[in-house]
Formats: sequence, C-alpha cells, structure tokens
Amino acid sequence: MKRAFTIVMAGGSGTRFWPLSRADRPKQLLPLAGGDEPLLTATVRRALRVSAKEDVLVVTSERLADATRAAVPSLPAENVLAEPVGRNTAPCIGWAASRVARIDPSAVCAGLPADHHIADEDEYARVLSLALETAADGDIVTVGIRPSRAETGYGYIEMGEPLGAERRDGMPTPAEAAGAGVGSPSRSGATHVHSESAYRCRRFVEKPNRQRAEQFLAAGTFLWNSGMFFFRAQTMLDAIRAHLPGLGATLDRLLAASEGEEEAILREVYPTLPDVSIDHGVMEKVRDVAVVPADFGWSDLGGFAAAWELAPRDDEQNSAPEGALLVDASGCFVRAPAGKVVALLGVRDLVVVDTEDALLVVPRERAQEVKKIVDALKKRGDEEHT
Amino acid sequence: MKRAFTIVMAGGSGTRFWPLSRADRPKQLLPLAGGDEPLLTATVRRALRVSAKEDVLVVTSERLADATRAAVPSLPAENVLAEPVGRNTAPCIGWAASRVARIDPSAVCAGLPADHHIADEDEYARVLSLALETAADGDIVTVGIRPSRAETGYGYIEMGEPLGAERRDGMPTPAEAAGAGVGSPSRSGATHVHSESAYRCRRFVEKPNRQRAEQFLAAGTFLWNSGMFFFRAQTMLDAIRAHLPGLGATLDRLLAASEGEEEAILREVYPTLPDVSIDHGVMEKVRDVAVVPADFGWSDLGGFAAAWELAPRDDEQNSAPEGALLVDASGCFVRAPAGKVVALLGVRDLVVVDTEDALLVVPRERAQEVKKIVDALKKRGDEEHT
Repeated sequence: MKRAFTIVMAGGSGTRFWPLSRADRPKQLLPLAGGDEPLLTATVRRALRVSAKEDVLVVTSERLADATRAAVPSLPAENVLAEPVGRNTAPCIGWAASRVARIDPSAVCAGLPADHHIADEDEYARVLSLALETAADGDIVTVGIRPSRAETGYGYIEMGEPLGAERRDGMPTPAEAAGAGVGSPSRSGATHVHSESAYRCRRFVEKPNRQRAEQFLAAGTFLWNSGMFFFRAQTMLDAIRAHLPGLGATLDRLLAASEGEEEAILREVYPTLPDVSIDHGVMEKVRDVAVVPADFGWSDLGGFAAAWELAPRDDEQNSAPEGALLVDASGCFVRAPAGKVVALLGVRDLVVVDTEDALLVVPRERAQEVKKIVDALKKRGDEEHT
Repeated sequence: MKRAFTIVMAGGSGTRFWPLSRADRPKQLLPLAGGDEPLLTATVRRALRVSAKEDVLVVTSERLADATRAAVPSLPAENVLAEPVGRNTAPCIGWAASRVARIDPSAVCAGLPADHHIADEDEYARVLSLALETAADGDIVTVGIRPSRAETGYGYIEMGEPLGAERRDGMPTPAEAAGAGVGSPSRSGATHVHSESAYRCRRFVEKPNRQRAEQFLAAGTFLWNSGMFFFRAQTMLDAIRAHLPGLGATLDRLLAASEGEEEAILREVYPTLPDVSIDHGVMEKVRDVAVVPADFGWSDLGGFAAAWELAPRDDEQNSAPEGALLVDASGCFVRAPAGKVVALLGVRDLVVVDTEDALLVVPRERAQEVKKIVDALKKRGDEEHT
C-alpha cells in the first residue's frame, strides 16, 4: 500500500464536559473513556497501526500546542501543527493535506477526530486499512457506523451500491453490510460485523428527527457519520480547490512557499479562512465519495452520559473515584480531585463532577445541557472558569 | 434580681453538618443560621442581655478551646472552660456550677446549648429573665417550646399547674399558655405568645412516635424540651449530689480545692466522670422542676434541612452562595468555598455542601442520614475528614 499518513483533528474546545473540560483543557486532552489515557493519546496510539510515527500529524490551536505535544510524546514535536487561530475542520484538513502533498502528493491520509472512543481496536485497524486502500484508488472515503439505535444526535450516510461499478453476485447488499453480515464477538461482548467492502455514498443526511431516525434504522442502509475521512493528499487538495476556492488559493500559496515562509503565511491568512467543516465544505459536495460500513464499538463521547456508559461501574451502576462514599446511590457518574472525599447519599442517576474551582450537579439524562452553564459563565465574563 | 450567670454548653461535636462540621470545627462554631455569626457567638451575644460579660462561662473541650475563645472575643479568655476530655452535659453544668458557687452559691444560672437559633431575641430575653426569676425562688427551671407540629425528633415536657401552689382565677391554664394565649407578631412574621408565667413540670417524655406526637400537639399541654436549664448554683450542686453522687463528690473536691489545684483535679477525675446528660442525670429525677412555656422562633438546627428553613432563599427556594449557577433548580441548599463556581442544573430539593476536602450530595429530606457518612469515614480510619 501507499505510504499512509494520519491527520488527527485536535483543535476542539468542547463544552459538554465542563467543568472537567476548559478552554485550555478540552475534551481530547481528558481521559474520558476511563483509565489515565487522554482521548487524543488513544487516537494517536491507534493511528500508529496504519501510519509510522513520522507520518502522524496532529492539528490543534496555538493555545493548546504545548498541552497537545505533552499528550502525544511518541510523536516528533514538529508533527503537532498549531493553527494561529482555531478554525473549523476544512482549514485543518487542508493545511495538513498540503503538508503531506509536499512530501508525496499521492500518499493516502486518514483524517480522524481526536476525541472518539473505540472499543474493538483490531476491527478498527482493519476498517482503517480498508478505507485507506479504497482512498488510494482515488475516491474520498468515509467510515459509517452501523446504527444500534434510532439516534437523533448524529448525521447519517446513506449507502449505495458496492464499489466496483456493477453489482456482482456474492457481494453483500448495502443492507447486509450494514446489519446482517457475519457476526464476530468483539471485546465489548457485542456482535460486530467485519467490514469487507466499501460502498458508494448515496448522500449525507443532517441529524434526523425521531421518526426519520427510526426509518433509517429500519431501512438498514443508513450509517452514522463518524467524521473520519480518507483520501489521497492530491485528491483532497483538488476537492478543496473546487468547492472552497478561497481556502484552495491559500493552500496553493502554502505549497509554493518555502518551509520558512509557511508560518508568516499562516499568520496572515488563517484569521481570514472560512469557519467551515470538511463535511459541509467538501464531503457533501464531492461526487465520488465512498463509505466503509463499520462496527467497532464507536462512541463520540458526546457528554457525561456517554462517559458513564463507557466507564467501569459498580454493582449499583455508579462510576466514581476510589474512596467515594456511596450510600444508597445508583446510576451516578462522579469525578473529583485526588484526595477529595465525595459522599453521595440517597441519589439516583446524577452526574457530580468536582474540580478545584468548579462543581457541577446535574441529572445524567440532562447532562447534555451543561452547555447552558458554560454560556452563563461566558455571559457574565467569567473566563477563569470556562 | 440576683446576679445571673450564663453557662453555655459548647462541647458538642455534632456530625449532622458534615462536611461543614468536623471534629475540630463543630456545629456551634459555624454560621449555620445565615450571615457570618457562628451559632456560639450568637448564643453569647443573646446571653449578654441577662448576664454581664464576666458572668458568661463557656464550657468546651480542650481541643476546641482556642477556636472557642476566638468565637467569643467579647468574653474574658478565662471564662472559656476547657474540659480535659469531652463528657456529656452533667459534668459540664456541674463544673461550671461549682465555679459559680465559689463566687456566690445563691447566684442564679442559665444553662444554654451553644448551637440553637432564636428568631425573636426580645421575647427570648423576656423568657430568660422570667426563668431566672423563677429559679431564684429555688426550683430548677426549664423552657418548653410551644410545639408547631407533631415533631418526633424532640423530647417533650408536660406542663402542670401554674406555679404558686393553688390555681388563681385569671391565671392562664396550661393549655392557654401553651397555645391559646395572646398573640404578638414576631420578627419572623409568626404569631408568638408572650411568656408570662411558669408552670409545674409534670413529666419529661422521650421522643414520641408519630401518633403520640400528634396527641401531644392536640392536648396543648406538651412542650418541646429546649435543653435550657435555670437554677441557683447551690440548688444544682445539691441536685447533683443527690442524683449523681460520684459527680457530686468530684464537685465537692473542686469546691474545697484552691484555684491552683483545680486543673490537676480535673485532669485526674474528668476521664472517670459519667457520660450522662443533665436531662437524664438530674432534671428527670428532681421533684421541683418548673417550666416556662415559650415561643420565640426556636430552632435546634438539627441538620441541613433546618438550616435551609432558616436561610434566606431565592424565588426558587434555593439557598446558595452568591455566584452559584442555578438553572432549573429549586429547593436546594448549597454551600461551597469562596470563589468556587457551583452549578446545579435540573435538580430539586438537594443538599450540596462542598468544602476544600470533602463534598456531600444528599436529598434535603434525607440530610439527617449524613451521620452514616461520618460513621463510614470513621470505620475506615479516616480522621482527616471527620
């Protein structure tokens, strides 16, 4: 296979994990999937199954550059690219693709969010390899997650025919690939479907309402958009030139510049770049997109409820630090600084997250609304706690 | 009136306000009634309406002596008596009474718990004066609180005939005195009954069950035992000699000793003194006990629910520090260190008490059970957090 790069998109500053997450300690730098490993560190560790160390690039903001480098000590420091200002994923992917193109325009790249969790890493590595192989043929490729519920919080991808133009006997239909394939037990005990084929992407669908989500689930041909992209560097640059010409022109300047000139150009142009995602700006506009259906125990860790789902829990379904005193408490997600005694008595399904300078208490089922707290803090000008 | 001393019983180490209260920062040293004034400080301030500074004694444990003196800077430092080991209230009252008897055996004394809250301090001062006048005639006197609900958490006192032997026309009956007297608006807006008379105490009753508590409330002749006692020093010493002879003998040694010998005697005998309350050891056994029915907005602050009742609250009935972020939260009692941001979202009737090293979350209606947490901490040998 071609030399495969990985571009990790690590510029996020999510607010759904406040007060654990802060502007200078965002989600990807936190060990939210349990244990001590930050999500970004795990993402890079998994990327090393398809890319060499030198070929893993992490794109983040200047503000987060030092903390990001500290989280990925296995990578060369210069592989952490610091954007002068935080922009959306299109500039991020574009800049990193231009870096790859300087080395080898035909090299394939995986563009991965820094802050997802993967339960079955072997299956994940297989999917990445398949997606990269498919991308080497010239398509932009995405990975679609086989839906396990009628989720309204994700965008969907509708699968078309298997790649290879005409449908051949013996190839699985999209529905078979999405749900009815050969099962294999995964680490989490669930039955996963090995990904063996890539499919034409018929369309991207925005987050549906409940009714449509149920139709998507029943149809068997709709997958969750995982936000992972695979492409040849040259293919992505061409797509950006076609669909985001302003960004494309900037990338051409970068490609033409000497290495010493790159930073000055970035400082000049980055603030002017469009705040657009690679999904909206490129993927949804490109004709030849392929999708690899996958099932490797994926979570985008969208909030404390998802973190609770992933965390080890006691018999009462509490996830709490060692030493917490839980008396007649169940279903709770508790975090606190080391050495602090947290006592819960007579409470159910509560999120209690304590830090040195802030404390959150919210029912687990309303934990998504924590953004309201961050907004209120910003509104009163409290930058210290956001 | 005779010279009136006040003995404040401030040796308590209550566990119902954990984690605010600790072994070395017990309830009486905390400003639990709102504002910045510790309960003990308020108790001494009120005592100064019936006693001179020099005549207010505060009895506490050696461990708490320094913190106690700091809380009552208006008193001479030597008026804070430090027990070598914590004992119950009988030794505490006995020792302090012996101190008073050295000065004037016929002086009257008020024995007051350090950790109660009084809403109507003028009425309270009137009641204390009446109780002290009654005690000057030779009875031991207690104050009984007119019950406002069928409380099962308190002991009760049954009133007998008005003092003065025969009942005279025009004197209120016990039922009239306990509930049906002339009302006067109090600070809290409730209608209080002025205390004009003392009554014979027919009997002390242990905490009743629900049914009996309702009978007591309906009868109109039962009052809550406030734990306040009034007596001539000599009367109390005689009663202790009669009903707690071991303690009586110790007090006689103290009375006979020179001032310089007192400490050595205390160190020798205190560890051997009975762990008995003045209620059980003396009051319930003495024949001539009088009771003054009272209604001055009394709270014994038995736990966080009582503190919430007393605290200023917002429109949603939350009592929380300035700067707390309360989104769709109601009926909550929140405390946290200065500068800490506490955010509650979508919770009802919750107690959230945060300190530097411990955090408690419990429904308000179960806040009494916090003792279970303290017990669990002690069981695992955690003295740092108890």
